[in-house]
Amino acid sequence: MVKNYKLTICYDGTRYCGWEHQPGRDSVQGRIEMVLARMCGMEPDASEFFKEDPPVELIGAGRTDAGVHALAMTASVKLDAGKVIFSSGQREKTFSTSEMRNYLNRYLPDDISVTEVHEASDRFHARYNAVGKTYRYTIEDGPVKSVFDRRYITRLDRPLDTDRMKEAAQYIIGEHDFKSFCGNSRMKKSTVRLVDSLEIERNRDRVMITVHGNGFLQNMVRIIAGTLIEVGYGRMRPDDVKTVLEARDRKKAGPTAPAKGLMLMGVDY
Amino acid sequence: MVKNYKLTICYDGTRYCGWEHQPGRDSVQGRIEMVLARMCGMEPDASEFFKEDPPVELIGAGRTDAGVHALAMTASVKLDAGKVIFSSGQREKTFSTSEMRNYLNRYLPDDISVTEVHEASDRFHARYNAVGKTYRYTIEDGPVKSVFDRRYITRLDRPLDTDRMKEAAQYIIGEHDFKSFCGNSRMKKSTVRLVDSLEIERNRDRVMITVHGNGFLQNMVRIIAGTLIEVGYGRMRPDDVKTVLEARDRKKAGPTAPAKGLMLMGVDY
Repeated sequence: MVKNYKLTICYDGTRYCGWEHQPGRDSVQGRIEMVLARMCGMEPDASEFFKEDPPVELIGAGRTDAGVHALAMTASVKLDAGKVIFSSGQREKTFSTSEMRNYLNRYLPDDISVTEVHEASDRFHARYNAVGKTYRYTIEDGPVKSVFDRRYITRLDRPLDTDRMKEAAQYIIGEHDFKSFCGNSRMKKSTVRLVDSLEIERNRDRVMITVHGNGFLQNMVRIIAGTLIEVGYGRMRPDDVKTVLEARDRKKAGPTAPAKGLMLMGVDY
Repeated sequence: MVKNYKLTICYDGTRYCGWEHQPGRDSVQGRIEMVLARMCGMEPDASEFFKEDPPVELIGAGRTDAGVHALAMTASVKLDAGKVIFSSGQREKTFSTSEMRNYLNRYLPDDISVTEVHEASDRFHARYNAVGKTYRYTIEDGPVKSVFDRRYITRLDRPLDTDRMKEAAQYIIGEHDFKSFCGNSRMKKSTVRLVDSLEIERNRDRVMITVHGNGFLQNMVRIIAGTLIEVGYGRMRPDDVKTVLEARDRKKAGPTAPAKGLMLMGVDY
């Protein structure tokens, strides 16, 4: 019997082309789909996932760029769990959700972990049903480099003025046309999004930009971070951000901050 | 003027042969000595550090094995800071301790960080003056793999009984001949050491073994961890640890736990 499952996934995006699979490249989605397919007794070729009717289709709540991490990405997948066959191919067996989680973690690489598997209603769709997402961008701006989480932070060589950044953040909060903060210049659909919170916290040499909204455009959080860095360094005034938003022009905003500092913290349904 | 400096160093030991340099291999000590030598205007060859009178000699509080990490290793080094010359070789300049720290962090790889540099008295010797050390061994024993600190923990596939481990730990605390817990079978010197605390804490799927003592034999913490794992899995009784100590025989103790789970937390003076 085909059932719909909701997966929560944690990953270090450093060595992947992003969440979404791309031909000939290594993606988080592709890695998990391959293990799910094997779990269901298939021995698919990676190329099959690019066909119209792939053997297993794992739907992520959104796409993360190459090098971006996730503490809790959500995905949904429809599987015939009653037909699940052990890799040995001999014994047919129905997997429980915790067995599915354990199977996935056993065969996934160390930088991808499935933290939860739940049965979901047939209508649950990880992307269409997502109503909000939280992202965090982490910057280290002191002279001493962090060693153990160096892959998950962006290093800057001089301190940011977070008071200025907090002031600038107020202009971003709200429902706006975020065209200036969209990395896809050929975006045809609406670029209006609601950012309902944008917090800037400092903990010693660590500056965390935490943003929650109903949806995000391509590179949007990284462009927000890059623009707030410009403000924190005094190269832009806090109220310039208002002008940037009104311009609806990507060139007016700051640069796209590096991928490594960004983490998808969670998805709301 | 030659001054003596005390350095505090944090490192991810994954890709090093250990703290101490070995011919033709990449060590934490060797990496830092090279940068210190360049800071002092020398352009030394790596091989020079194996001579009797090396250009710069960085003395660590102790040696860590290949793959072992340090949150706070301590080291001392005598340098003629008055003769420090910028890498360009043109301008002679006296480095302050914070400039030394920043210079080191600029040129060291991402997995080594110098967190503090202080001037020390001429007699300060990082190894001889160390009176205590704290090590922590971290194990993850649940079904869900941690992604972000996967390089710093040892994964086990079923849960440990930490009550049994706590009971066994009581036999290790105290001054004992730790010959059974020494990885060097040809050790000629005394194998008597004082372990004044050995704590076992569980935080969800994480088991942390934190040990403090006046000094540790080669692999001693990893063999203690490996033996406690045997107890935690019921393959040894807690009071077997008493027999193991008394046997003064490495073969009686448990296996040497993997290096990646071990971290030097700090050194006391």
